[in-house]
Amino acid sequence: MTAPLPVSGDDRDDDLAFADRIFTEVAALSPDKQGVSRPAFSKVETNTLRYLEDVARAAGLDVWYDAGCNANFALPEHRNAEEYRLVGSHVDSVPFGGNYDGLAGVVAGLIALVRARRRGEAFSRPVHVLALRGEESAWFGPCYIGSKALLGVLGAAELGARHKGDGRTLAEHMADIGLPMDKVKAGSPLADASAIIEYLELHIEQGPLLIGKNIPAAAVSGIRGNIRHRQVRCIGEAGHSGAVPRAFRRDPVLAMADLFVRLDESWQTILNKGDDLVLTSGVVGTDPAKHAMTRIPDEIGFSLDIRSQGAETLDHMRALLREEMRQVERDRGVRFVLDDELRVEPAVCDAGMVAGLEAAMARAGQEPFVMASGGGHDAAVFAGAGVPSAMVFVRNHNGSHNPDETMDLEDFISACDIVYEYLMG
Amino acid sequence: MTAPLPVSGDDRDDDLAFADRIFTEVAALSPDKQGVSRPAFSKVETNTLRYLEDVARAAGLDVWYDAGCNANFALPEHRNAEEYRLVGSHVDSVPFGGNYDGLAGVVAGLIALVRARRRGEAFSRPVHVLALRGEESAWFGPCYIGSKALLGVLGAAELGARHKGDGRTLAEHMADIGLPMDKVKAGSPLADASAIIEYLELHIEQGPLLIGKNIPAAAVSGIRGNIRHRQVRCIGEAGHSGAVPRAFRRDPVLAMADLFVRLDESWQTILNKGDDLVLTSGVVGTDPAKHAMTRIPDEIGFSLDIRSQGAETLDHMRALLREEMRQVERDRGVRFVLDDELRVEPAVCDAGMVAGLEAAMARAGQEPFVMASGGGHDAAVFAGAGVPSAMVFVRNHNGSHNPDETMDLEDFISACDIVYEYLMG
Repeated sequence: MTAPLPVSGDDRDDDLAFADRIFTEVAALSPDKQGVSRPAFSKVETNTLRYLEDVARAAGLDVWYDAGCNANFALPEHRNAEEYRLVGSHVDSVPFGGNYDGLAGVVAGLIALVRARRRGEAFSRPVHVLALRGEESAWFGPCYIGSKALLGVLGAAELGARHKGDGRTLAEHMADIGLPMDKVKAGSPLADASAIIEYLELHIEQGPLLIGKNIPAAAVSGIRGNIRHRQVRCIGEAGHSGAVPRAFRRDPVLAMADLFVRLDESWQTILNKGDDLVLTSGVVGTDPAKHAMTRIPDEIGFSLDIRSQGAETLDHMRALLREEMRQVERDRGVRFVLDDELRVEPAVCDAGMVAGLEAAMARAGQEPFVMASGGGHDAAVFAGAGVPSAMVFVRNHNGSHNPDETMDLEDFISACDIVYEYLMG
Repeated sequence: MTAPLPVSGDDRDDDLAFADRIFTEVAALSPDKQGVSRPAFSKVETNTLRYLEDVARAAGLDVWYDAGCNANFALPEHRNAEEYRLVGSHVDSVPFGGNYDGLAGVVAGLIALVRARRRGEAFSRPVHVLALRGEESAWFGPCYIGSKALLGVLGAAELGARHKGDGRTLAEHMADIGLPMDKVKAGSPLADASAIIEYLELHIEQGPLLIGKNIPAAAVSGIRGNIRHRQVRCIGEAGHSGAVPRAFRRDPVLAMADLFVRLDESWQTILNKGDDLVLTSGVVGTDPAKHAMTRIPDEIGFSLDIRSQGAETLDHMRALLREEMRQVERDRGVRFVLDDELRVEPAVCDAGMVAGLEAAMARAGQEPFVMASGGGHDAAVFAGAGVPSAMVFVRNHNGSHNPDETMDLEDFISACDIVYEYLMG
């Protein structure tokens, strides 16, 4: 709110105020004990979309909902465009989440529309903004649910995944919201992808690279794919903690620890070779209904999230996981049971769009910088459906998926400038 | 129920029927989803004592409750004996527990009284039978609560321990039942230990040794002591599972796994040296209110139960635990937080009683066999209070603290024969 911007200058304060208001009011709609919580396909998510609808209508935008119950926004003259560039992201969050993961990309699109209207400037191609539901895997297990449903690629296993809170299936939750489940189950697209010229998504960076580089924003070259298991079971044998000698034990906790240390060692080896990999077990637990300090548990469950920019590295880790499980099973008399594997292929951003974003960064007076995305995003689903896709990352402190996620609004507006310049170019 | 017994012979069927009825009816009073559940200082526990009271009165025994609200039983002529041998065990169980852990020792005492009455035989010294409350640590963390309160050695930390279900303190639960909390808190004994000549406890074996030896029962030489932590916290830093590179992570799950593998390796080394040790983490978990498949957890919690017959081995493991934690903290940027240590010293059974039990085994026509106890028992508390104590183990399948615990009633009656012969000798 101090120095004038090279490009927009005098209306930067309006954009800052508009963004600040939306972020503040949406956070107030979706509080958790710490941070925010906007569950996928929930009433909180619906209320968030309705709030954005009100804000957008007040700003003179057209608003409508697609068959996937996502909110769409456009300048009135572009509402019925035959082809359009799509700027979007998601509005749901993880539990105890930050306010910017997802929401920032939607607000960036709205700012582009509002700024164009305020300045009376014309986009080079029509622009639609999309506020998607259900991107986070925290609620059901599968991710990118909203964009997958929209593009007709949501599978039966995903639809049968159960909500971690109420145990009801994703299909039931979607039906509650009003999605046309016959079409979703049949894999029929709910939107005409051929009308989408390009998909552009602004998102906070979820790692620490832009802080290290000391720049506010970057274009994204590609998105890590992943292999995930929501619940791997390690099954051993229950027993008295004091009375079963080591040689008679089939302890699932020590077996899981053994597996983790083996995978961790392989991870380091893979990085040493120069390949890309991250590996996380975010959910770990013995059964609270059965466990006790003095009981060798009969089993323990854990999630696995393995990500890489290389499909071959994912294949390698998939095989390695099974090999290490077999070793631990042999050594420790336990049994591992994998649930259905969820897999998302690595996605490459459209080279022409990345070049266009670099040019837009230069026009906005910023240093062009391109980086890889560690997190997965809806952009990967659009890219997978053949829609040229790209992303802009905004510098963000303390990572995402936690209450301490912190995006500076000045950085956000700098990233919005890139999006705006791109849409004008 | 086939071949006549060397000692009792024709009334073995009566004992079997009496035991079978009590075990069956108490199990019906305390069902869990699998197995039984008789929480310490609960209504279910109280109802179990009331049931035993009814059965004992119907069999012509005197029944009364001590100030610790435990049930006591005797032949009418021994109710007011100045000194008595005490035969007892506990009636509580772990959740999803087996029916025999604890209850068997109480039934063995009742069978001794009923058999003596039926046969018109006289014990060499007066006998009281004690049905204790609250031995299992599954409910509050501390163990041997009932016997410790009775002997005036329950500490303030133990009284402040919180119930794992409702979060209320042990002191509050005890007050609900009607214990005199002023005395308990002051460490005043609720019973006159000087009147107890000896304490004898029959218990199912909680490990597989008697199955391996193919004998129905054994005398016990001593009880493993333990060091326990109900909740150790490993604190790292939350982050996005896909976007934080390995070098930037402070992952508490992999840190815990690293610690467990280090402890497991030391365990094997200690066994190789010929020392005695078992080590268990029975309760492990990330926070269900925060965790997600795509989030590096900020922390994970786990319990530790370390047992040995050697106090020096416990001391060694105590130091080793801290040393390994420091190493993992340095290597992985996490922090371990230990809760209050619970410690029980190893207990040695009274040599005279063990010799007496061996003689009783011979008189009962069984092969004398003596073994160590892996599990802790109330007998350790009586021994600690200076009461000569000993135990008899009964062969038992599938360990204890689980629904599959299985004691053959024939084996049980064979062990009751040892107790009876001992009390007569």
